[in-house]
Amino acid sequence: MNLGSQLVQDAVDAFAKFPGIGRKTALRLVLHLLRKEPSEASLLGATLARLVQDIRYCSRCFHFSDHELCPVCAHPKRRHETICVVADPRDLMAIEQTGQYSGVYHVLGGLIAPLEGVQPEHLRIEALMNRIAEGGITEVVLALNSTHEGETTAFYLSRRLSGTGVALSTLARGVAVGAELEYADELTLGRSIAERVPFRA
Amino acid sequence: MNLGSQLVQDAVDAFAKFPGIGRKTALRLVLHLLRKEPSEASLLGATLARLVQDIRYCSRCFHFSDHELCPVCAHPKRRHETICVVADPRDLMAIEQTGQYSGVYHVLGGLIAPLEGVQPEHLRIEALMNRIAEGGITEVVLALNSTHEGETTAFYLSRRLSGTGVALSTLARGVAVGAELEYADELTLGRSIAERVPFRA
Repeated sequence: MNLGSQLVQDAVDAFAKFPGIGRKTALRLVLHLLRKEPSEASLLGATLARLVQDIRYCSRCFHFSDHELCPVCAHPKRRHETICVVADPRDLMAIEQTGQYSGVYHVLGGLIAPLEGVQPEHLRIEALMNRIAEGGITEVVLALNSTHEGETTAFYLSRRLSGTGVALSTLARGVAVGAELEYADELTLGRSIAERVPFRA
Repeated sequence: MNLGSQLVQDAVDAFAKFPGIGRKTALRLVLHLLRKEPSEASLLGATLARLVQDIRYCSRCFHFSDHELCPVCAHPKRRHETICVVADPRDLMAIEQTGQYSGVYHVLGGLIAPLEGVQPEHLRIEALMNRIAEGGITEVVLALNSTHEGETTAFYLSRRLSGTGVALSTLARGVAVGAELEYADELTLGRSIAERVPFRA
């Protein structure tokens, strides 16, 4: 694709590095920027630079936070003895939006993925072990993706946590609420029937 | 969505202003930036700021250009008496990629869209009229979207160009190459049969 301008080419290259953004979408974003006031695009640049320089994380759970502790960790009514382990802040937010969880979190910052060079020491696993070593934690909930990386990370954590006396649980897997059985994939339907639960009317 | 951090919120808001980027995708982009080296994110910010400050356009056709004239306008073998009118540089690039067009271009910078406040005077229509007034142009090809805005712009241009002695043409509309007739929409198939062309084996 000959863009006719090195500046446009550089900007398209920069956007195309993002996950899920191809070169066509990148060009669409660049054209959108060019239609705006220059001041607005400069503002975007400044916002992004400030984000990366000044971002702070909760010192306890590593969620984004403008303060020492994030709102969840600082909340007196959360159940601080239960830690839900998630890969990144998006998963944390997804669980918060369900309104079904009253414990606190621990954001690993990714999943173990040896092929992509992500080893356990690149994640915030030691910080999790330290939280548990400080005492008072009774349950750790592994809320990780149902992918190869998620399963690997869950297995690694289960090994590290064995012997700490902390109860370990994981998300229930099964047919989605509202879904039709005939369209569920075999693995999910299989887990769903093998791990059936008492009926509650 | 409570993001826990004003910096993250600002960056998500900035990305979510782009067309086709919702708040979930914006958050994914922000998380991707945060996983990178701070220097890389600063580079993105600087690239975007530079883009908007320093972008230059071809003085003749208004395509992006690092020089006074873009590579198409500067090319001695292009047919400079034929101008293809497009809404934006993406359309120009799409036509260039077909390798079927040997004339030059004129980038309007949008389409007439009164509901969005885009009037003829916001587009580069006077510059097109000036190019034609300078003489030497024999044909103008309207390569505009087959939408309400595209049709409106084509109608407006046809009125402006009548009496200039320039031949006016437009893209052929019809069933896509490789498409099956039974899946073509009625309007397209209708245009396709009404504007049928001599068979060439």
